[in-house]
Order: sequence, then structure tokens, then C-alpha cells
Amino acid sequence: MKIFYSSDDTFDANFDELLQRGKMDIEGVTSIVAGLLKEIQTQGNSAVKSQIAKFDRWEPANDEALLVSTEEMAKAYDAIDPDLRDALHLAYDRIESYHQKLMPKTWMDKEANGTILGQKVTAVDRAGLYIPGGKAAYPSSLLMNVIPAQVAGVNEIVVCTPTPDDEINELLLAACHLCKVTKVFKVGGASAIGAMAYGTETIPKVDVITGPGNIFVATAKKLVYGEVNIDMIAGPSEIGILADESAREDYIAIDLLSQAEHDEMASSILITTDGELANRVSDKVEEFLETLSREEIARKSIEERGAIIVTQDMDEAIELMNEIAPEHLEVITNDPMSLLDKIKHAGAIFLGENTPEPIGDYVAGPNHTLPTGGTAKFYSPLSVEHFLKKSSIISMSKEGIQEIGGACAMIANTEGLTAHEESVRIRLRD
Amino acid sequence: MKIFYSSDDTFDANFDELLQRGKMDIEGVTSIVAGLLKEIQTQGNSAVKSQIAKFDRWEPANDEALLVSTEEMAKAYDAIDPDLRDALHLAYDRIESYHQKLMPKTWMDKEANGTILGQKVTAVDRAGLYIPGGKAAYPSSLLMNVIPAQVAGVNEIVVCTPTPDDEINELLLAACHLCKVTKVFKVGGASAIGAMAYGTETIPKVDVITGPGNIFVATAKKLVYGEVNIDMIAGPSEIGILADESAREDYIAIDLLSQAEHDEMASSILITTDGELANRVSDKVEEFLETLSREEIARKSIEERGAIIVTQDMDEAIELMNEIAPEHLEVITNDPMSLLDKIKHAGAIFLGENTPEPIGDYVAGPNHTLPTGGTAKFYSPLSVEHFLKKSSIISMSKEGIQEIGGACAMIANTEGLTAHEESVRIRLRD
Repeated sequence: MKIFYSSDDTFDANFDELLQRGKMDIEGVTSIVAGLLKEIQTQGNSAVKSQIAKFDRWEPANDEALLVSTEEMAKAYDAIDPDLRDALHLAYDRIESYHQKLMPKTWMDKEANGTILGQKVTAVDRAGLYIPGGKAAYPSSLLMNVIPAQVAGVNEIVVCTPTPDDEINELLLAACHLCKVTKVFKVGGASAIGAMAYGTETIPKVDVITGPGNIFVATAKKLVYGEVNIDMIAGPSEIGILADESAREDYIAIDLLSQAEHDEMASSILITTDGELANRVSDKVEEFLETLSREEIARKSIEERGAIIVTQDMDEAIELMNEIAPEHLEVITNDPMSLLDKIKHAGAIFLGENTPEPIGDYVAGPNHTLPTGGTAKFYSPLSVEHFLKKSSIISMSKEGIQEIGGACAMIANTEGLTAHEESVRIRLRD
Repeated sequence: MKIFYSSDDTFDANFDELLQRGKMDIEGVTSIVAGLLKEIQTQGNSAVKSQIAKFDRWEPANDEALLVSTEEMAKAYDAIDPDLRDALHLAYDRIESYHQKLMPKTWMDKEANGTILGQKVTAVDRAGLYIPGGKAAYPSSLLMNVIPAQVAGVNEIVVCTPTPDDEINELLLAACHLCKVTKVFKVGGASAIGAMAYGTETIPKVDVITGPGNIFVATAKKLVYGEVNIDMIAGPSEIGILADESAREDYIAIDLLSQAEHDEMASSILITTDGELANRVSDKVEEFLETLSREEIARKSIEERGAIIVTQDMDEAIELMNEIAPEHLEVITNDPMSLLDKIKHAGAIFLGENTPEPIGDYVAGPNHTLPTGGTAKFYSPLSVEHFLKKSSIISMSKEGIQEIGGACAMIANTEGLTAHEESVRIRLRD
């Protein structure tokens, strides 16, 4: 792996390049995606079906053929290895329990004069979850999207997933049954995002669309934002690791590779205070690479987008990592908890050598849908919050409006809004 | 005002038209706005200055001329009527106190085996607030955007506001001093959104952009979404009122007008169970209209976008109102609190006849930046949440990973990710 030293004169330029990782250039595909969306919006199912024929190479016989049968899901669930079924249930329960802790509550407070202020929390009516299909059909993505929507109390959950050549991943079907999802449509890419944003004869219009996807999906989500809400615009996966001399090179190397194997565009970055560790990790990565089933992808990612940075001290290491704002951040140091205060930007923080990032991908509990490409500076992990919205509550008492109505009317007047002013004054006169 | 009866055969068609209110057609301006943004991104301040010359008709002498002097703000603050100053301070204190109650907290929970899960809450580093200028320069907008950012703990707050002909609203300046805002730039429209999203030589790149604006601002916010976060895409203002026979027609009429006077495109909709009240409100609106300083705007809004709907009962009224999902919802009935459970979608809910909507615009405490055009089905009021983001925290104990690591490795394996699997198994072996 490439090793950089923060004390080098050329370091700033190299670091700037790392900060540009994961920037997607959606300009090139925007007009194509906009065209697909417009077709779906104006022609509904007929456009959905012709786009499936074009991109997924099969022709749905009729509208009903877009829906996966629940019998198929039950059959797939029954067919999987019982140990795997238990593993998925364990994951479901832990993810559910964590997300329950994230639920905000409706509250109201009464002032001395009887005025009540508060905030009401309500689930959206309908949520649409996009789950990638084909070779990257991950049942874990289904759990991570469905569970927060269910915990939030969403009434109707719709899933869309592409089925290239009309083939669907059996594990995904099994996970659908496990999650009690019933509306799964065999529609992918921009077509799916358009169908859920605008609604068609069979696919309901939703309020929120979440879930990962390629550049076409990401672009479609951006284009329908405002018509519906979305979770975030996510790019390739990435890991940052902060380590000191106490860390083990084999743990770090395999954890870096666990991101690299996702995608040639994935970034794996180690920042350490220990130059010796840097060299040992680099060797170990090379050694492990040869053992991986996805060696080719991982090697390309490590060579083109991987980096090890050696800093003068841990404060500098943390500062650089905050600039990177990685999707996943592992902290493998003597006392990782003591560094938590200084860490500002990261999608998920994995503390200590017993917490490999993949544990958070599947079973720990927190969501694995996380902000990438530095957007952890302003986005949060997927959560119940994405399936909820708030309403302010105001109930003024007669005494309350007498107390603050005068100030209100005065500001309204200075803003030149006389109906605003009068709507308060008419009450003050009574 | 137009009165519709839900029992009429033609009602569904009329109601569908109401649901289409406030849809902005941004397609027409998208390419213009994208061009302006690209100029700012590639040419920085020089593009900002030439766009100001073009749209605001003045030529900044140099980069420093973009910044409002803090002395000017202090002078404006000293010059305003002391009663108005007190009114603004009252507003500040109440808005601050309400938003403090919305602050989520970092938490961590320990499991029996020593594993820790939690969520860390952090403010974004920099926030950019857009405040419309010219005739619609409302100091209240400044308070409603600055205070949640300050309560959230944002380190650097940047304000942009257009100054047509190099003139700036004195009240806005005074409010900036009151809010202790120091970085106010005289840049408006798409130029401002571009400058804050990409950064220029003098205007810092921010993480989140909030604030209201016209269609150019809304379109620019949508285009930079993903590069930065935004609060929402908002359209014209609107009010929905639910009323029964206990309500007073004069209160309802002036409250409907308080939205209508904002904008010809504003919508004011009363839904009532009382046909007699409907007629009396319609007469009262006509009577009040003549007294308003913004009569022309309000009249056009009421005539083209106002409506009164008479329903069979309150359940039907609430159901229709949930479909409308208004920005502001007043409930003026015998026991308004008893209806709160049934209300699903509204930006802010004003309960009882002593709670006119304008009280929420200025001094009640909750935010006046609210989702419009039916987007209350998925957006929330502007809040501290827009200036914060979360990071998941996972710290597995040695015992913890032994307990759930096997399940994790098994799922990783079925997904074909062998580095994921090995990163767990290597720990299980130790």
C-alpha cells in the first residue's frame, strides 16, 4: 500500500487527493435518468415494463408479474440453512432493539400561564426501499432498511429490487419473509425510484425513498428529492482506521480489505502514529489479498484508492481523519474511548480491536447505511428519523396571548404584514 | 371565497386541484440556475460580483465590499425603537428556549457482556443561512434560522442576503447584531447558494444551507443537495383551518388573510362542519380584505387559491386536511386537544381560538420555517436537527464478539464477502 508521511513537503497535495475520493460525477447520466423518470411519471406501468425489458432483459407478462409472490418468499425462507436463519433472526432482533432506542417521542410542556408548546412525532404513511439486485443482492441491506421503517411505525412498506434475466436472489426472498415484507416489486434502477416517487397503477407513490444503489439510482434519488424525501446520496464504501503502536497489523490489514473487496472504487485508509506498524500492515495486506475470493476487486481498490498515513502524534491523526470524515471509522488504540470526544465526523465509530467493521454491517445493531465521501460532515446514519416527521404544537392560553401578543403584533407591523398584526390584535381586544 | 361541499358529485375533482397547490415547476429555471452555480464554482468571487452587478444592480468595489460591516449592524440595532428591540429579545429568548428542548443527546448503553452501543451527536462545522432581501427582508427569518444553528452549537455561521441597489434592510441589520451574527454577505439568489455550497475566496464553504427563497433559490438548493445538506425545498405559504360551530368567523377570516397577504400564490383553506359558519367567514374575509395594506396580493390569493370546504362531520374534515398536509394548521373547535391524535400531517399545529398562526411566526417559540405544498407528509420544521448529525458507536467486548461473531461471519459468507468473514473469524480464533 502507498505510505505517506504527514511531515513530507508533498503531503498536502497527496492528502487533498484523498479528500476527493468518492465524488460521483452525476452530470453525465443526469439527462438519461431524467428521461427515464419522465417516462415513468407520464406512462406508469407500461414505461416500467419497457424499461425492465431494456435493462433487465425480461418481459413482464402483465402488471401482476411485477410483484414477487409471498409464497415464493416463504418457500425461500424454509429452504435456507437453519443456522443461517438463526443468524438472520439474531441480526433482526439486535437491529430492532438498537433502532427502538433512537425513537423520538411526542412531548408537550405547559407554561405557568397555561400556554402549551410541544412537538408531535408521526411516521410517514408509505416508505419505499430500494435494494440492489443481481450480484450485489445483500439480504442485510433489506434488514437495515426495513427495520427502521417498521420501528418508526410506517403503515405501508414497499420494496423494489432489480431482477436481471428475471432471476431473484433466494436469500433476499428469505429475508423478505423474515421481515414480513409483502410488497416486493421486481423493478430496479432509475425505473424503481421513479415508480415509487410518482406511483404507477400497481406501485404505490411513497413519501420517503431509502436504500443504496449505483450512480443511476443515486442520480434518480437526487432528481425526485422534494417530490419525496430521501435518506442520502451515497457513493462507494470506505473505511478509516486510527491506530497506535498497540494495534495488531493482521486485524488492521483484514479490516482494510473488508472495505476494499466491496468495490474497486472503495477507499481504505489507515492513519497511524507508528511508522513500523505502517510497514507491517502494508505487508500483511499483500499477504491476505491472495486469499480473498474477490481478490481482483480488492487489489484494484487498495492500489488505486488505499493509503497509509504516518503522523507525528494522535492529535494530528484525528484531525486528518476528521477532514476525511469516513463512512466507517475504526479506532484501534490503547484507550479508544478516551479519543471519542475528539472525533467529530464519521458515519459509524468502531472502538477497540474487538470491533471489526463487518460486525456493524450485519449484527451489532446500528445501521449499515452510512454517509460516504465525506458527507458524514452533515449526513447521519439511516435511522427511524428518516421515516418520521415532526409537527410543532402551539396552544396559547388567553393569558398567554395577552402576555406576548403585543410583541408579536409589533414585529408583524414592522414587517409590513397588517393581517398578521390584526389577527393578534383582534384577540387582544377581546 | 369559493365554498365546496364534500357531498357534491364534483367535489373530488375540485379537491384534487387543491392538492396540486404550490407545486413549483423548476424545470424552466434549472438550466439557468445550473449555469450560475457552475460560474460560482469555477470562478469564485469574480463570478459572485458579476452576478451581483447583473441581478442586484450594483458593483462591489472589491471582495471586502461583499461583507456587511459589524459597525453598521450595531448602529442599526441602536437606532430601532426600544419597544421593538424588547419584542425581538422576547422572540429570541422564547425561540431559543423551545429549540433547546429539541436537542438530542449523545448516549451509550452497556450490555451484560461489556459491549457498548450508542450514538454520538455533533454539530456541523459551518452553516449557511439564506435570508431573502429587498421587499421581503424579514428579521424574523434571521432569528428562526440563526437560533437553531446556535443552539445546535455550530462553530461558524454565515448569512447571505441580497441587497438590490446596494440597499440593506435596517431591521435585518439590527437583528443580525441582536443574534451576534458577524459574517453577513451581500449576495443573493442562486449566487449565494453556490458561494456557500462551493466556497469562494471570501465566502466559506458550509456543510448545511437553510432558509427560504424564491424559485431560483429553491432550485439552487436542490442542485447543490448532496454537496451540502439543505433544510427542505419550500414553496408558497399556506394555512389550513379546521373549525366547528363553536368557532368565530372574524378570527378565522383574519387568520386566512394572514397567509393570503404573504403571496399571491399562498393558499388559505378552511374545512368546517358548519355550513352557516362557512358563509359568515366568506363575508368576513371580504370585509377585512379592504382594510389590508397588502389588499391586492391577499385578494388575488384568496380568489385564486382560497377555499372553504363544508364536510359531513369532523372525521371527514380531518381526513381531508391530512391529505392536504398544510404548512400551518389551526384547530378551532370545542375541544381541539382531543383531535390531536387524529392529525397526521401538518408543519405546525395551532390549537384553540387563542392561537392565531402569526403568533408562531414570531414569538411563540417553535420555528416558522415549515414544509409547504403537502411536503409535511415527510419533512419536519426547521430545527436543531438540521444543524446536527449523528455517528453510531460500537465497542464490542471480547465476550461480545464471541457471542455474535459466528452469526456475523455466516451472513458475510452467504453474501460472498470473504474478507468481511475473515475479519471476524480472525478475532474469534484469538
